Amino acid sequence: MLAGLPVVDLCHDIPPEDIRAGAYVLFTSWKYFPVGSVFLAVVDPGVGTTRKALAAFWNNYFFVAPDNGLLSPFMGDDFRAVEIPVPAEASPTFHARDVFAPAARRLALGESLENLGQPCLSPICCAFLSPRETGEGIRGRVILRDRFGNLITDVPAAMLEGKDFAVMAGGREIALARTYGDVEPGQALALIGSGGFLELSVRDGDAAEALSLSVGDVVEVIWKKM
Amino acid sequence: MLAGLPVVDLCHDIPPEDIRAGAYVLFTSWKYFPVGSVFLAVVDPGVGTTRKALAAFWNNYFFVAPDNGLLSPFMGDDFRAVEIPVPAEASPTFHARDVFAPAARRLALGESLENLGQPCLSPICCAFLSPRETGEGIRGRVILRDRFGNLITDVPAAMLEGKDFAVMAGGREIALARTYGDVEPGQALALIGSGGFLELSVRDGDAAEALSLSVGDVVEVIWKKM
Amino acid sequence: MLAGLPVVDLCHDIPPEDIRAGAYVLFTSWKYFPVGSVFLAVVDPGVGTTRKALAAFWNNYFFVAPDNGLLSPFMGDDFRAVEIPVPAEASPTFHARDVFAPAARRLALGESLENLGQPCLSPICCAFLSPRETGEGIRGRVILRDRFGNLITDVPAAMLEGKDFAVMAGGREIALARTYGDVEPGQALALIGSGGFLELSVRDGDAAEALSLSVGDVVEVIWKKM
Repeated sequence: MLAGLPVVDLCHDIPPEDIRAGAYVLFTSWKYFPVGSVFLAVVDPGVGTTRKALAAFWNNYFFVAPDNGLLSPFMGDDFRAVEIPVPAEASPTFHARDVFAPAARRLALGESLENLGQPCLSPICCAFLSPRETGEGIRGRVILRDRFGNLITDVPAAMLEGKDFAVMAGGREIALARTYGDVEPGQALALIGSGGFLELSVRDGDAAEALSLSVGDVVEVIWKKM
Repeated sequence: MLAGLPVVDLCHDIPPEDIRAGAYVLFTSWKYFPVGSVFLAVVDPGVGTTRKALAAFWNNYFFVAPDNGLLSPFMGDDFRAVEIPVPAEASPTFHARDVFAPAARRLALGESLENLGQPCLSPICCAFLSPRETGEGIRGRVILRDRFGNLITDVPAAMLEGKDFAVMAGGREIALARTYGDVEPGQALALIGSGGFLELSVRDGDAAEALSLSVGDVVEVIWKKM
Repeated sequence: MLAGLPVVDLCHDIPPEDIRAGAYVLFTSWKYFPVGSVFLAVVDPGVGTTRKALAAFWNNYFFVAPDNGLLSPFMGDDFRAVEIPVPAEASPTFHARDVFAPAARRLALGESLENLGQPCLSPICCAFLSPRETGEGIRGRVILRDRFGNLITDVPAAMLEGKDFAVMAGGREIALARTYGDVEPGQALALIGSGGFLELSVRDGDAAEALSLSVGDVVEVIWKKM
């Protein structure tokens, strides 16, 4: 441990194997950390296989993660990555401990990214968010269920701004609102969540249960005729 | 993050919406922290509505919390609170991040309470604990179930000291004991818990399951005739 | 809190009462912490009874724990322990807070072990690991289920090195592999886990559910005839 270096446990609750949920948490959290922070992020169905281990730099932040799409939200112009060699003695089932954490430590101590490995020119980039314009609106999907049962979709607020629309999910229309308190207890609502995406909730309740929806299910935005 | 300022994750397990459970944890924890500590506490069914955001001072400790009764245990003579303005850009569903945390940071940096907002003269104060004297004893309620299945009631030890009594819950008498080891494995017992309240437990077991009791259920203390 | 002293929450997920699971986590974690670290470890079915409270030293690390076998993995030549007196005002149900934590603080501040209490010459030592040679192989048991559903056994890698063997569990043979990616999704495998013990897993799945196995169940290693 580096004396004086604060370590924050950002999240240990990502559902097993759910790379997209991990990407969402990184994407909605990085800006609350100081420039120069090192994010160690592991959601790793491919641990111990030939998938690469990456150290990366984007927008003055550092990231250490498997090469499986977890860093997709950051793969713009400014993004660069190197491949961290996996030492022979690393446990084939715990790269977080034996590969990623030691690399994060080196970055936190000030080593340059390039010092950690050879450039990785084509890291795996997934369609992290894939809302689709349907002509009549937007077809999105639930990408995360939080511990309260709120359902976060992949429809960003930017696609909805200034528009007049209805939200359909699970075969019914969900009332639009600004926050939970705008509807009666037990009533479902759709709102722009704190991560900047369309969310479905139930006031004082669990939307996933009440609406019988889960990760992957479709949520439709329908433009209103004028 | 403030370099050198320890941040303690006191608890992230409060049941959703359960203000009284949150108040209990604060009430039984504050004294283990050094004077001047800042408690950031959020259980917030009313997030984004007109409920106020508070910063408060009591007994040389600072608190930041919604104005919904969460700070009720501290509302004595020494308590004073200010209303933190909610900035227009705050997410209506995540005041913990956008309103309360920034206020806690300012207090931790040494800003005065009064600098954070206008005085709040009538913060909401709930009956945090409401055991009722029945003549024959005390009628209390279960206010919290911990992760082991122990059931914490709102009957404080001070009401029981020096008294001779029986405890009834779920239609049966629960044996009194000093600690788990005083009864056989699997047996139910009533004891004074570590927070200073009457608790129901099952040795090496889960009292909530074994007794079919949950939060809100009645626990009766019956004075013994002499 | 000691300013500048990092506190790491190593684990809060030990199943209630499961001393062996706690011992496993300590045994597979200590070496990743710097020499001189103080481990405060509590799995305490006997809290408040006559079981002793221990402070101990082993291999330049310090430990504070109940005298119930939790420190068994470290009870070699170099191990020494003292009995911490339990103050009369300690809660009989929360020695972690009132007995163990204050002792850990004193050790972290540099007090000598001997200063904390009288020597404990015969601390309780459990058979932490009890794999048994059967002539035809090794009979081990599942000692821990992790959050992914992987099943960790008490068969150490050292007993298997250079050997040719099959693994039987739940009435079927489990394929041997080096890591999850070596088998098809949904297939069961047996491998040497990151703690150095034989583990059963299901790729992209939950082995405990898929194999209907739980803590305590037998796992057989069968030597192959040559």
